[in-house]
Amino acid sequence: MDENVTTSVVVLAGGSGTRFWPLSREAYPKQLLKIFGDQTLIQATLSRIAPMIPDNQIYIVTNSQQAEQIRFQFTPATSPNFITEPTGRNTAAAIGFAAITLAKNDPNGIMVVLSADHFIRHEQVLLAQLRLGREIAQKGYLVTIGAKPTRPETAYGYIQSGEPLLHFPGAARVERFVEKPDKEKAALYLESGNFFWNTGMFVWKIATILEEINRFMPELAKGLKTIGEQTETVQDGTSPAERTSPAEIYACLPSISIDYGVLEKSEKLAVIPAEMGWEDVGSWNALDKILPQDEVGNVITGNVVNVGCNDSIVYAGNRVIAVVGLQHIIVADTDDATLVCSKENAQDVKKVVEILKTKNGEVHRVHRTVIRPWGSYTVLEEGVGFKLKRIMVHPKSRLSLQSHTKRSEHWVVVCGTARVTCGESVYTIGTNQSTFVPMGVKHRLENPTDEPLQIIEVQCGGYLGEDDIARYADDFGREARPPAV
Amino acid sequence: MDENVTTSVVVLAGGSGTRFWPLSREAYPKQLLKIFGDQTLIQATLSRIAPMIPDNQIYIVTNSQQAEQIRFQFTPATSPNFITEPTGRNTAAAIGFAAITLAKNDPNGIMVVLSADHFIRHEQVLLAQLRLGREIAQKGYLVTIGAKPTRPETAYGYIQSGEPLLHFPGAARVERFVEKPDKEKAALYLESGNFFWNTGMFVWKIATILEEINRFMPELAKGLKTIGEQTETVQDGTSPAERTSPAEIYACLPSISIDYGVLEKSEKLAVIPAEMGWEDVGSWNALDKILPQDEVGNVITGNVVNVGCNDSIVYAGNRVIAVVGLQHIIVADTDDATLVCSKENAQDVKKVVEILKTKNGEVHRVHRTVIRPWGSYTVLEEGVGFKLKRIMVHPKSRLSLQSHTKRSEHWVVVCGTARVTCGESVYTIGTNQSTFVPMGVKHRLENPTDEPLQIIEVQCGGYLGEDDIARYADDFGREARPPAV
Repeated sequence: MDENVTTSVVVLAGGSGTRFWPLSREAYPKQLLKIFGDQTLIQATLSRIAPMIPDNQIYIVTNSQQAEQIRFQFTPATSPNFITEPTGRNTAAAIGFAAITLAKNDPNGIMVVLSADHFIRHEQVLLAQLRLGREIAQKGYLVTIGAKPTRPETAYGYIQSGEPLLHFPGAARVERFVEKPDKEKAALYLESGNFFWNTGMFVWKIATILEEINRFMPELAKGLKTIGEQTETVQDGTSPAERTSPAEIYACLPSISIDYGVLEKSEKLAVIPAEMGWEDVGSWNALDKILPQDEVGNVITGNVVNVGCNDSIVYAGNRVIAVVGLQHIIVADTDDATLVCSKENAQDVKKVVEILKTKNGEVHRVHRTVIRPWGSYTVLEEGVGFKLKRIMVHPKSRLSLQSHTKRSEHWVVVCGTARVTCGESVYTIGTNQSTFVPMGVKHRLENPTDEPLQIIEVQCGGYLGEDDIARYADDFGREARPPAV
Repeated sequence: MDENVTTSVVVLAGGSGTRFWPLSREAYPKQLLKIFGDQTLIQATLSRIAPMIPDNQIYIVTNSQQAEQIRFQFTPATSPNFITEPTGRNTAAAIGFAAITLAKNDPNGIMVVLSADHFIRHEQVLLAQLRLGREIAQKGYLVTIGAKPTRPETAYGYIQSGEPLLHFPGAARVERFVEKPDKEKAALYLESGNFFWNTGMFVWKIATILEEINRFMPELAKGLKTIGEQTETVQDGTSPAERTSPAEIYACLPSISIDYGVLEKSEKLAVIPAEMGWEDVGSWNALDKILPQDEVGNVITGNVVNVGCNDSIVYAGNRVIAVVGLQHIIVADTDDATLVCSKENAQDVKKVVEILKTKNGEVHRVHRTVIRPWGSYTVLEEGVGFKLKRIMVHPKSRLSLQSHTKRSEHWVVVCGTARVTCGESVYTIGTNQSTFVPMGVKHRLENPTDEPLQIIEVQCGGYLGEDDIARYADDFGREARPPAV
C-alpha cells in the first residue's frame, strides 16, 4: 500500500445515555463511563487503536457538551481532535460530516470508522484486520469489519459474505446486509459460516465514501457541500482542533444510518471477518457477555449480598444491594437512583429516562458526582436553604476565580492543603481548618500541592443552582462561556 | 363484670429487625418504624387501645435498647411503662414475667396481651371484642382473639372453635390449635366457618395464666418465682416504671411460645371471633394485604418510576427507584441499602441480615438516620479522616455536655438558631454561621428556640466512632450510662 496516505480514525460518540441509566445520564452517556475495568469506553476505544494511529489523527464526532467531558479524560498531549455536531443526525450525517472535514487535508486519505461503545476482547485481531482493511480500501472498496458469530444472537444485524476477494485471504465481497433476525434465522446464520455480525466498524478512502454518499444520498451530499464551503480548512493534525458546522443546515440533514442510506445500496462493499470477541455495549444485558459469570449465571459487581439468585446481573457500588431469589433480573445501583429490570425488558430502560425527564429533578441528566477539568464535586445533600458538596481538586489545579450572587460558602478542608483567594486575601488552610466565603465576594479554591485536596462545602442561600456563578479567570477558558450547569 | 378490677395491657415488642430489612435494623425493629401512615407500629398499637386503657396501665415488654427508642416516641405524659427483659426468651417467658410483675399490684387483675407489630383495619371491632374478652376472662377463661379468615392463608396458624359459650354470643370454647396449614387445608378451614386466624392477642386474669403456667410449665413458673422474689414491687402505675429481672435466671428460662407451652394444653380456652381486618406484619409480603394495590396488583410507595410491572411491592423513599417489567418482586429502598427479593423468598431476608453481620459495617444494625431523645442525626458521608452529619435538634432541646478525645467538629447552622457551649464560652449562632469545637473541649449544642434547628457537622480526626464521647451532663440521664453506639 501507499505508505504516504494519511490514515485517520473517526470515532462516533454521540450516545444519548438512556439505555445504561442510571449508570449513564444525559450528560454522561455510556462512552464516558467505566463500565468494565479502569478505563471509560472512549478511553478504551482510543487506547485500543493507539498502536496503529497517532492521537493527532483521531477525530471524535460528538456534541459540544460531550466533547468537553471527553476532553477531561485525556491529557492535553494525548487529546484527540473533535468534530462537533450541532445536533445528532444519525450515522450517515456524522460520517459524511467527518469525511468532508478530513477531505480538506487529504481526499485520498483512509478513514477508519469506529464506535465509542464497543467491547473487544482480542484487540490485536482488530488491529490486524483494520490494517488489512486499509489495504483493501485503497482498492476502492467500502470495507466492513464483520465479527464471527459465537451464538445465535438476535440483537445484532448480520452481513452475508459472497465472492472471496483475490489477494486478500479471508476477505470477501458483501452479498447482503440483514436486519436483526429471529431465533431460527440466527441459528441458521451461525451454522452457515458466511454470516457475520455487523459491527459498525468501517474502513474506506474518504473519496470513495463521499462518491457513494453523492450517488445514494444526494440530499445529504448537497447539505454537506454547503457546510464544507462555510467552514475553514481543518488544521494539519498537530494540535487538537474543533470544528462546528452551521447548525441550521446540519439540523436539516437526513437522519438515517450509513448502513441504510449507503452501504446496503453500494456495490463496492467488502467484509473482513474477525474473531475478536466483539460485543456491542447496547444495554445492561451486554454485561452477561462481557463480565465473568458465576456458576449459576450471575454477573455481580460491587457491594452485593446474594442469597440464591441466578442468571441475574447486579451492578452495585458502595451502597449495600441485597438480592434474594432473583432470576433473569438486572439490578443497577448508583448513589441517587436504582434500576430493577427484568432482562427481557432491558430496552425499556429508555422509557424510564423519558418519564424522569417529565418530572422535577436532574436524575436523568447528571450524577451526584460531576467531573470538572480541575477535579470533581459530589452533591451530598440538598435541603431548604443549603446544599452540601464534597469537592476534590487535582494536584496543582484550581477552580475559576468566581463569585455567587445568591449564596455564601463554608469550606472545611478534610484532606490536603488549600490555597484560598477570598476578596483581597490569599491564604492557606490545611486539614481540619475552615474558611468562609461571603455572598458576592470573588474567590478561588486552589490545590497548590502534589497530593489531592478534598474539602466539604456547605452552601447557604435562597438559590443554590450551579448557574449562579460569575467567572473572572479560568485555567480552562470557561470565563468566556455561559455557566455549565 | 367487676368494675373495680384493674385491666392492664401487655404489649410484646421484642422484634429482632431482620425480616423487614433494610427498613428495619437490629436497633430499629419494625415496631419502631412507620411502615404504614404516620405512626410507628408501636404508636399505632398504643393509640388503638387508648379509648379502653389509660397510658399508665400499658406495659411494654422489650429489651432495654428498644425501651429507650420506644420512649423517644412518646411524650413523658403519654409514655407507657416498660418491663425490660435481659434477653429475649420467647412469648411464654415474656408473658409470665409480665404476669408476675403485674400480680404484685392486683393478682385478680385482667391482662390483655397484644403484639406491637399487627395491623388492624377496624379498630372499634377489636375494642369491642377485647371488652367482651375481659368479661369472659373474669369467668376464668384464657381468651384468644381469633380473626375471621378472608382468604386461604398458609402463613398463619388457626384456632378451631368448639362449643359456644353461654351468655357470650359469638364466643366459643377452643376445640384445638392448628399449625400453619398447606393450601388445601387452608381452603377447607376458610370454608368451614369455625376456623380463625390465631392473632396472638389474649385476655385473661393474671391469676389464671399464672396457674396454667404453673401447671404446664413448672420450670418457667419456678424461675419466675425466684425472679419475683428478687425484684421490688412495681409502682402503682401513676408514673412510667421500668423493672429489670436478674439476667442470669432469665437467660435460663425455657424459650418457647405461650401457645405451645400453655395454650395448646389448657382446658380453659375460649375464642372470640373478630372481623377486624387483622394482619400480622410478618414480612414484606404483608404490604400486599395492607396497602392499596393498583389495577395490576402492585403496591408502590415513594419516588418510583414504574414501567410495566405487576404483582410487585416497591417501597421507596426519596431516592429514585425505577422498576421495569417486574413480576412478583419486592424492592425496598433506604438511604444506604436496597433489597430486591422475589416474593416467594421474602422469609430469606433474614439470611441477608445474617450475612451482613459477618461483614464489616453497620448496615444490619442502624440506619443512616439515628433517633435520639433530643432529635436525630444522619450520617451523610464517611471518608478517611472525616465524617459528615446533618443534626436536627428539637425546639427547646439540647444534647449532652460532652467531649471527644479523637476528633474536632466544625458546625454550620443551616436552619434555625443554636446556643453553643464551647469550653468556657456560651454564644449563639444563626443560619449561615459556623463554629469550631476543638478536640478535647467540653461542648454542648442547644436549640433555645421554638423552631427546629438544623446544623451540618464536619468531624475531623483519626477515629470517628460514636463511642468516643464523654458525657458530663445530660437531660436524658445518659451521663451515667455507657455511650450508646
